[in-house]
Parts: sequence; C-alpha cells; structure tokens
Amino acid sequence: MRKTLASVLSAGLIMVACVPLHADEGMWTFDNPPRKQLLQNYNFDPSQQWLDHLRLASVRFNEGGSGSFVSPSGLVMTNHHVALGQLMKVSTPEKDFVRDGFYAATPEQELKCPDIELNVLQSMEEVTPVVQGSVKPGMSEPEANKARKAQIAAITKASKDKTGFESEVVSLYGGSEYWLYRYKRYTDVRLVFAVEQSVAFYGGDPDNFTFPRHDLDVSFFRVYEGGKPVHPEHYLAWSPDGAKDGELVFVSGHPGSTDRLRTLAQMEMHRDLVMPYEIAVLGRILADLQAYSARGPEQERRALGFIFGVQNSLKALSGELEGLSDPAIMAKKSAEERDLRARVEQDPELKKKAGSAWDQIAGATKLSRSHWTETVGVAMPGWGLTQTALSLLRYPTEVKKPNGERLPDFRDSNLESLKFQLLSPAPVFLDLEEVMVVFGMKESLKQLGPGHPFVQAMLQGKTPEEVAKAVMTGTSLADPKVRQALLDGGEKAVAMSKDPLLDLARRLDPFLRAEWKWHEDTVEAVVIPAAEKIGAASFAIYGREKYPDATFTLRLAYGPVAGYEFATTRVPSKTTYFGLYDRCLAFDNKEPWALPKRYFDRRDRVDLSTPLNFVCSADIIGGNSGSPVVNRAGQVVGLIFDGNIQSLPGRYIYDGTRNRAVAVSSQAIAMALKALYDAPALAEEITGGQKKP
Amino acid sequence: MRKTLASVLSAGLIMVACVPLHADEGMWTFDNPPRKQLLQNYNFDPSQQWLDHLRLASVRFNEGGSGSFVSPSGLVMTNHHVALGQLMKVSTPEKDFVRDGFYAATPEQELKCPDIELNVLQSMEEVTPVVQGSVKPGMSEPEANKARKAQIAAITKASKDKTGFESEVVSLYGGSEYWLYRYKRYTDVRLVFAVEQSVAFYGGDPDNFTFPRHDLDVSFFRVYEGGKPVHPEHYLAWSPDGAKDGELVFVSGHPGSTDRLRTLAQMEMHRDLVMPYEIAVLGRILADLQAYSARGPEQERRALGFIFGVQNSLKALSGELEGLSDPAIMAKKSAEERDLRARVEQDPELKKKAGSAWDQIAGATKLSRSHWTETVGVAMPGWGLTQTALSLLRYPTEVKKPNGERLPDFRDSNLESLKFQLLSPAPVFLDLEEVMVVFGMKESLKQLGPGHPFVQAMLQGKTPEEVAKAVMTGTSLADPKVRQALLDGGEKAVAMSKDPLLDLARRLDPFLRAEWKWHEDTVEAVVIPAAEKIGAASFAIYGREKYPDATFTLRLAYGPVAGYEFATTRVPSKTTYFGLYDRCLAFDNKEPWALPKRYFDRRDRVDLSTPLNFVCSADIIGGNSGSPVVNRAGQVVGLIFDGNIQSLPGRYIYDGTRNRAVAVSSQAIAMALKALYDAPALAEEITGGQKKP
Repeated sequence: MRKTLASVLSAGLIMVACVPLHADEGMWTFDNPPRKQLLQNYNFDPSQQWLDHLRLASVRFNEGGSGSFVSPSGLVMTNHHVALGQLMKVSTPEKDFVRDGFYAATPEQELKCPDIELNVLQSMEEVTPVVQGSVKPGMSEPEANKARKAQIAAITKASKDKTGFESEVVSLYGGSEYWLYRYKRYTDVRLVFAVEQSVAFYGGDPDNFTFPRHDLDVSFFRVYEGGKPVHPEHYLAWSPDGAKDGELVFVSGHPGSTDRLRTLAQMEMHRDLVMPYEIAVLGRILADLQAYSARGPEQERRALGFIFGVQNSLKALSGELEGLSDPAIMAKKSAEERDLRARVEQDPELKKKAGSAWDQIAGATKLSRSHWTETVGVAMPGWGLTQTALSLLRYPTEVKKPNGERLPDFRDSNLESLKFQLLSPAPVFLDLEEVMVVFGMKESLKQLGPGHPFVQAMLQGKTPEEVAKAVMTGTSLADPKVRQALLDGGEKAVAMSKDPLLDLARRLDPFLRAEWKWHEDTVEAVVIPAAEKIGAASFAIYGREKYPDATFTLRLAYGPVAGYEFATTRVPSKTTYFGLYDRCLAFDNKEPWALPKRYFDRRDRVDLSTPLNFVCSADIIGGNSGSPVVNRAGQVVGLIFDGNIQSLPGRYIYDGTRNRAVAVSSQAIAMALKALYDAPALAEEITGGQKKP
Repeated sequence: MRKTLASVLSAGLIMVACVPLHADEGMWTFDNPPRKQLLQNYNFDPSQQWLDHLRLASVRFNEGGSGSFVSPSGLVMTNHHVALGQLMKVSTPEKDFVRDGFYAATPEQELKCPDIELNVLQSMEEVTPVVQGSVKPGMSEPEANKARKAQIAAITKASKDKTGFESEVVSLYGGSEYWLYRYKRYTDVRLVFAVEQSVAFYGGDPDNFTFPRHDLDVSFFRVYEGGKPVHPEHYLAWSPDGAKDGELVFVSGHPGSTDRLRTLAQMEMHRDLVMPYEIAVLGRILADLQAYSARGPEQERRALGFIFGVQNSLKALSGELEGLSDPAIMAKKSAEERDLRARVEQDPELKKKAGSAWDQIAGATKLSRSHWTETVGVAMPGWGLTQTALSLLRYPTEVKKPNGERLPDFRDSNLESLKFQLLSPAPVFLDLEEVMVVFGMKESLKQLGPGHPFVQAMLQGKTPEEVAKAVMTGTSLADPKVRQALLDGGEKAVAMSKDPLLDLARRLDPFLRAEWKWHEDTVEAVVIPAAEKIGAASFAIYGREKYPDATFTLRLAYGPVAGYEFATTRVPSKTTYFGLYDRCLAFDNKEPWALPKRYFDRRDRVDLSTPLNFVCSADIIGGNSGSPVVNRAGQVVGLIFDGNIQSLPGRYIYDGTRNRAVAVSSQAIAMALKALYDAPALAEEITGGQKKP
C-alpha cells in the first residue's frame, strides 16, 4: 500500500459508489458480495462456505499489504515487496537477504521478524445505529464529530475486552454505515523464503506498472503461536494449472484507499494542488535518497527499500494525475455529480437532508486550499526514529485521557500495536534518519519561511543540517531498552529525559497538535457529515448494489484473465519464463534486467513455457499487493503484485477495458521453488498440502 | 514501398532539407555521404571503395523495395513481404508457397519469377545545366514544364542507347539538381527461399510497426543471366556476430518518398484532406477485400497479399496522420518556414527570385483542394488487369509521338519495363479484379455523382456490379498471348478489338488524359518551379550539408543500434528467439501469433539466446524494406523490414529519440536456415561465401 504525505487529507472523504457499475467493477465487502453480477455474467454463485473460507484464509499485513494462508502449517504467501521492510530489518551488511534471497530449509532456520503484525478478519458487525446514536440534537459539528469518535472508541474497547480480538470500527459508504471488524492478530511471524530482490522487482522502476511483466514478486512467512507453527483451519489449496485466458478469477485482499466518489471540488484540489505537490516532494526526496545511496554499498543497501517505495509512489502518482488530467474522466465525474444533485433537488426530503452537502464540502475544501502551506509545512521531520520519539513523548499524556479523547494511535484498541512498533528491535540507521530529518526541516522552512513560529521552534536559529546532526548524534532512542525505560517510566521519565530527539519532539508537539485540531474542527467536522449525507442520498436514489470506497479492509474483487489493446498492438494476458530470459538478454543481462547466476546455471531445469505473470480485470489498488488470486474452486492460481499503468486512474474511476491487476502465476512459483531454488519441500508444502511440524 | 491513391500529388513537391539536422538524420545520396557527421559523431571515415562496394551490392526491387547481393553466385536477400507478390504469382491452390514457405535445395528447384525486375545503380551524373538549359526566356510555365520533360526524355534515351543501362533522370533538392542515374537491370530472377508467411509477418497487423518484434521477414532470390547465375563483382560479406547495442550501423536502400520540406499549405492539405480521404478509402477497400476473402480458402489465398498491403498502408497512414496532427510537429514546421521566408525577405536577390514561391504553391494547393473530387473520382477503376488494358489501349498512340511528349510510362527508357509487365505470365484472378473494379466505380459514382460525364461514360446507365461483371466475364486479356497480339498488331488491332475491358478503357481514356493535363498545367507547372526556387534559396542560406527528399533512389542512412523510452518503460534494442516463443505461448499459439509445427519440433536445435530483431536510429521509410544493414566493415548484420510507429511521422520530420528502423538480425537468419529450415547449404553460401554453380 502506498502512503503519501497528504494521505491524512483523505481521511473521512471516502464516499459511496452507487452509480451504474462497469463490468467487473468493485471492491466488495464479504458481507455483500456481487452475487447478482457473478451469476448474471459468469453463472457463478459462491456459497457462504466458499466466502468464509476465502476470508479466513486471507491475511492483512498491517505495514500495508495482503497475504494468505497456503498450508496447514501456517505458511503465509505474500509479495517480496510487502516483505521488503522485514527483509531489510533481518539483514546485515554480512548477510544481505534482500540482495541474495533467503530460504529456511528447516524450521530452525526460519527467521523471526522484528515487528511484523498480521491480521485475519474474524467477523463483521454493523454498528451504525450505535455510532450515530451518540450524536444528540443541538450538537455543533465539532461536538458531533467528537461524540462519534468517543462512541467508536468505546465500541472497540468493549469488543476487544469481550472477545480478545483486535477490534476496529470502519466507516463505509461515506459514513452511512459503521461496521465493527474483529481480527485475530499474529506477531510471531518468521521468514521462510524470499527470492533475490532483483528477481522480485525484475525490470526495476522502468518495468513497474508495466505489462508484459516478468517478476517473481513472492515471499513466504510462517505464523507461530506459543513457539509453534499455527495450524489454521482455513488455508488455500494450490492450483497446479493456474488460470487460463478468459477464466473468471477472484482477488481477496486489502485495497488501501480509493476516491471513487469524491466531489468535483475535492478532485480539483487533488489534481491542482495535492498531487503536483506530492510528485514534486517525492522527486526531491528521491534525489536526496539517491545521493545518500551513492555514498557506498552499505548506504545503498540501507536506502534500497526507501528508494523502491518512493519511485513506486512517484510512478503511481504520475499515472493517477494523468488520469485526473484526462478531460474525459473529469467530464464523467462531473456528469455523475450533476445527475445526483439534480435528483436530490427533485426530492424535497432528500433536498432538505443533503441539498447543501456539496457546497459544504466545497467550502471546507476552499479552507483546506488556503491552509495548504501549514498542512504540509507543520510536520514532524523524518520518517522513522523521529516519529517514534513523538509517540514516546505523547504516550503518558495520551493514555491518561478518556479513551475517546485520545489521538487515534493511543486508543485502547491500538495500544498493543503501538507498543509493539515502539519497542521493535529492528536496526536503526541514524545516518539515513539524519538525511530524512534534514529533508523534512528544509521542506518546512521552504513552505513556512524562517519567521514562522514552528520553524523557529524547530531550528532555534541553527541550520537544518546542524539541528539534524546534533539530534542524531545525541539521541539514544535507537536502543530499544531506552525506549522501554521511557515507556515504563511514564510522564516523569519523559519529562526528565534530555534526549535531543525527544526534546525536538517536545518543542514541535504543540504546533502539531494545533494543526491536527484545525483539520479536525475545520475540515473533518464539515466533510464527514456532508459526505455521509451524499452517501445516504446516493444510496436512496441508486439502490443497494454497491461497494464502499477502499479502506484497507478485506474486499473481494473479480474478473476474467484478459489481455487488452495498447498503443499499436494487443497485450497478451500472460508472459512465460521464455519472456523472462528474452527480456534479460534483450538488455544484455544489464541492471535492472540482470538475472542471478542460478537462472543461467539451472535454465535447463526450467520448463520455459510455464506461465510467469498474468493479468485479470479484477478491481484492485495499492494494499492489494500480496493478495491471492483464486479460481472458482477457491484454489490459488496467482499472487497479485501490481496493477498496470492504466489501472492507476482506478483511484477515481474503474474502466475494465484496460485496467488490469498483475499477478505471479501459481505455476511460476512452484516451478521456481523446485527448479531454481532447491526448495522442493516448500513446493511440496504449498502444492501438496503436506503438513510440516 | 507504400503507394497511395493520391501519390501522384506528391510528384514534384519534393524539396531540399537544409535546416540544421538531428543526430543520425538523413537519407544521403551516395555521391554526397554524411562524411562530416560520421567522422564527428562516430569517428568513422568511409573510403570511396567502401561506398562503391555497398552501392554496387545494393539492389532495387522495381515493384517497391530493396535488397542486396549476399553471395558470389548472385544470391539476393530481401524481405518476405517484398517477395510476397512474386510468391503469390508462383503459388497455386495446390502449392501455396505463401502459406508453407519455399526452399530450393538444388539449382533445378529454383523457381523463375514471372515479372520481377531488379536494378543495380551503376553511376550517378549531374545533368542540371542540360535540363535547365532547355527552358528558354519568355516561356510560359506550362511551356517550360514541357521543355524540361522533353529534355529529360532525350537525356535518358541517349544514355540508354549509349550504355545499354536503364537510365533515369531524377529531380533532387526540389529540382535544384537533376541527376542521371544508370542501372543494370535483371529480369531472370528465381526464388530460392522463403519462410512461411505466418513467420515472416509474425503478429500480423497488430504487431506491424510495433517493437519489440519477432519476425523472420526474409526471402532469397538468385539472379540469372543467359540461363546461368550471375557472379556479381560486389556482394556483401556476412557478419556472424551481428550488431551490438550501441554499435554504428548503415542502411543502404531505396526510401520511397518523404515530404520533409513541404510548405505548410501543402502539409495542411495533406492533413485535412488527402490523408483522411486515403484512410477512409483504404478502410472501405479493406472491408471489400475481407468480404471477398471470406468466400473460401482459395479466395483467402488470392486476397492475402492485397489485404496485407492495405492493412499496412492503413496503419502507416494513421501513424503519419497522428504525427501531422501533433501541434508540436506543425509548430516546428511553421517555425522553420517562417525563418526561411524571413531570411529570403532580407536578401533582395533571393527575395526577387524566391519571395513569391510560397504564395504560388499555396495558390496551386488551393486549386488542388477545389479540384479534389475530380482528382480522386476520375480514375481507372481496378488495380491489375484494368490498368493493363489502359496501357495496351494507349501503347500504339503513345509510341508514335516524339519521345518527350509521351506519357511517362511510354518513354523509350521505360518501354522495356512496361512491355515486361504487360506480358507477364503471372496468374490473373478475375473474380478479385471484379471486386476491385466494382469498388473503384462506386467510389467514382460517390465522388462525382451519377450525372458526371465520366460516370456516364463508365456506367452507360448500368450499375457498377453489372458493368464489372460484363467486363470481367467478357475479357480475354487475362491471356498473355492476347496481350502480345494486341501489342504486335499496333493501332489497328487495338482499334478493332471488341474486348469489353479494352472498350471500357477506350471510353474512359479521354477523361483520364484531360485530368492528367489539368494537373500538369495547373499544379505541376506552378509547384515544380516554385519548389525549385525555395530549394535553391534554402541551399543558398543554409549551405551544402544536406540530403534530398526520398525519391525511391539509392540512399545511405546511419545510426547506432539503440533502444528508447516508450510509455512506462524502456524498449530494448533487440529481441531474441526466447521472445518469439514467449509471444507465441502468451497468446496460446493462436493466430496471428501461431508458429508452424517445425518451430516446436526443432526447438531444441535453436540457440534461443540468438538475437532475432533489432532496432537502430537510421533514417528510413517505406521502400527501404529489404535493405541490408551493414557494420563498419561492410558486413551484413541485419535486414530492414519495418519502422516502429514512432518512425511514421518521419515522412515529415525525423526525431532520433524514438524513430527506429526495425531489422532481422544476421544471426537469426543463419540460425533459422540451419536449425529450422534444413537449409545448411544456403546458410553456408551466405555466411561462408561459398560459390554455387
């Protein structure tokens, strides 16, 4: 899942998609699968058992991504790029598993990941009346907003206390519905297998979002509980034959976020302000990361995952912006909004309820626009340890407050996850942290100017380079024991700490809180109820056949394996191992199309006609990475790892003619394990359903 | 080479390209190679011997296309698609060499082609003063035009009489220069080898103009004289290693026509009128051909070559029109024209000579536009036998006239070629001819209306279907003996013939001649001298480093083997046999990506890493098909067969960043002959330089 700097702006802006659907459109919740479409277009009627089995075998990677149980011994399949963060954390300069790949041939060799969290969705329960019931007549918008939040905090705490499951209230259909999702959470997760990154991200940034494609973007983890592998009741069987051209397939995973029914005013702000800003900032970050990476091989190793992430976001954002800049897309959006507003105007009841909602959102959006430099300038600089410092600082003050009044990360239902992250033993690279802190400070300086109180509190008359150097040289927060002591020591320990990074967080926190509050009271408090009204009106007018915008919750997507027309010719629905070797040699085995030596040494063992990657028209987006692709029998036929560039406007609109999800075929994975990676036992475990200890 | 209906309009509109060049730009005449650019950019200085050798080993296929001698025993290499017309003519329903390919393992099996003509350029001599000297002071434009034509006819006749070589006066640099080109002509040409059309045109229309590409678009002929293979002094050696990425290579061939320095007025007419018309007409022709083809397998076989040609032209024209519709290209053209006109205005001498030339061309273009329906409507319907009938009708009247006053085809220097074509023993498909005659008549009816005298003379109150059926049922011109008798019988035999096709030609000829005269006097007479003036002015201002627009005469192009950026990723500079199998299996071995059985049976014999196709930035266009690609040592490294879609605006402007010529690699050809086609002797003849009887 891609996270961008301004993703916070998206919060609460999700809305209901109720207009007529394109074929194969939709990221459906499991309580409301697209039965009618599947029956009508594909003569397929999934049983409740089929749906439950697929849901309970699906796994969410909380870092951002999806996966699935694929063996009775707790083996989880996901993408290499979903696992990349963990791979970096368990690697050292001496043992670079990112570069060289990893395989644990025995349980003892499996590597415990420092701070991974997996979730499996156990149940879904609608709680709309309870949430909405907390808003009393006469409340102002900020008061109502606060009341809803407090109620949601209470529901999740009660659920967690009662069931022991992680509990989350998700707002769907723009807030017309609230649902309580309960998850089984796993944190003892061990690395079993990963290919070389050059193979997982074959073709590098150039081939990203491209099809035809030739990636083995795959890794395997095993989930433990009480020191033993779990034996999940639900895991997916393996298809030895994969999916044929034209065959209906399904994707079960966790799309991060879509904006299918933003209002025009919001889309215009995104197109004209947010996205160009994000693209520019990411370009500058990339330049700084590349300069850092060029310092030496160890720096290159440390920065690799970040560079990957930034390049990925840059290409994705550019594709999205291209979609948003397409007059045809905006015209379609505009026509849809005009139609809905006209129908609302015609119905006195709806007009009274929702008639002014668009103008309210437009008003809040206008305020957002004028507040833009603060939004992006008032931010904690840095990515990793600085954010940890801020959380450590806030921890004792926040947990003292009533649950419903805390900042979201500190609510009871999230506290376990937060502590798990704060105490992670993963290595910290202070030199890289410093580069990113300098970057963040310069951005704030650039946006706000040297006279802004936030900038003055941050720099105290020094340069960003001086402050960052002092902070990163002086901090001892890289040591998990120091963090543990601060957590244990409570308010007093935090207050007495002279750690310069904690001190920086202390100086900036009041500004960050004020900024948060401004957004909560000025934007959220207006946009959330207005979007809810539009959602309800849309629901009333267009009916029940709908799916909510993506919210990083479990969804079912579907569609056939299908090629498409592009530029001068037809793009096939799959590639083969032949194509992998062709692309390698077409570029004379040069980066990023070089293949590891084993691919040449063992070429004769590989059946080159084996399908490698394939595309289907299932409606997915970032966060779906690692999702299993299954056939009607519920067997794994593939592993989602990308969308084509034509899928990127999918954030705003789905067009099945060329929007494609890109997957590794099940046959390619089995072939690689057996012929290239000397991992026949692993191949046997996934394809044969053999038990492992 | 692609010929379009309105190609006649291009005559005389070619002009000199004297503005600053892009890197690797240019289709250079062999008397003026780009020495400075090659030395400066590639540190290469070709010797006169190098140039002469390459020129004398280069072959023009008069049907449209290029080739080269590649063995001491007269073996000529060209594309399969250049040979397609001949392959169709030597095929029968029982022996379909187009579908199944052909290989003559012994000289006795080599198949004589019915009407092929090859030319080898022997010498080039400037004759500008002689041609221009024929124009006397006080002559009107039509008179001057006539005088030039008479002088050119005299020069070619004298040359032919003196040397025995085919002689042709070509107008270069928009008529600033006239050159006498002498060719050695061969007509006894025998088919030696051709692959299956499915392999030669792999990927069909979808993959046409696309890269990466996977075609073996190759065929071999042997040239005979006096019943024995010729032993050319100059033939190209074979490179076993092909060309590397980044390596400088050369293309020697016959680009058909370019319009690099048309005036804006002419380009606008092409963009707005000519090209949309051509695209629409070709679309209608294609539909009729496909309907004919669907009648049965024999009709499919007969129509295949025509459908190929029409689809090829359609895709090429669409690419060109896209280029011409690109505001950036038109803006660049506009800026260039503005600059040249401004400089002409500043120089009193040039202003006097050329200042009004652009307005004169604009005036003639305006007349052309208003005459458009006649231009396209007054035309002999049909493609093959109807054109033959028209030539047979005209023959005796034309040859009686002074050489300089005849229609171009009937001038002494062309007479031998014309008779060769008129007496061709190639099969005639009357049912297909009928379809195309109906099509042509309907077009005339549509353009001119039923009341137009031309249409009335053509239809005589009947429907196009009735006339075409009567003509094709009644004619005996399909028999070469009947044609021979008409030629031998002279004016009287023609006048007495009651052949209905000859009668149709007789009724239409006066209109066709009047139309020809209108263009000659109203357009050519103005545009030729005006273009000549612009050419001369441009020459005076920008200097000597220049190349003329393409005229289907021999040219040298150059550039490195190089990939390029397209859409989301990088396109490599080559493909391999791995890629061929990948594309086949990616489409489940379905048409047009199916491979013949031998490709599966003999796969293990093929070194799959062998480069298959590659691209270089050499500046080429239709007509270059079949050109050899050679390295600095003059060895064959490849065989041109296509341009990418980005090369198509090259008719108007060259942009080396993405304009690419597409070639079959020399290694792929040798590999195919040895491993797939059981033709080791042929492989040996081209790669080893072995003599054959």
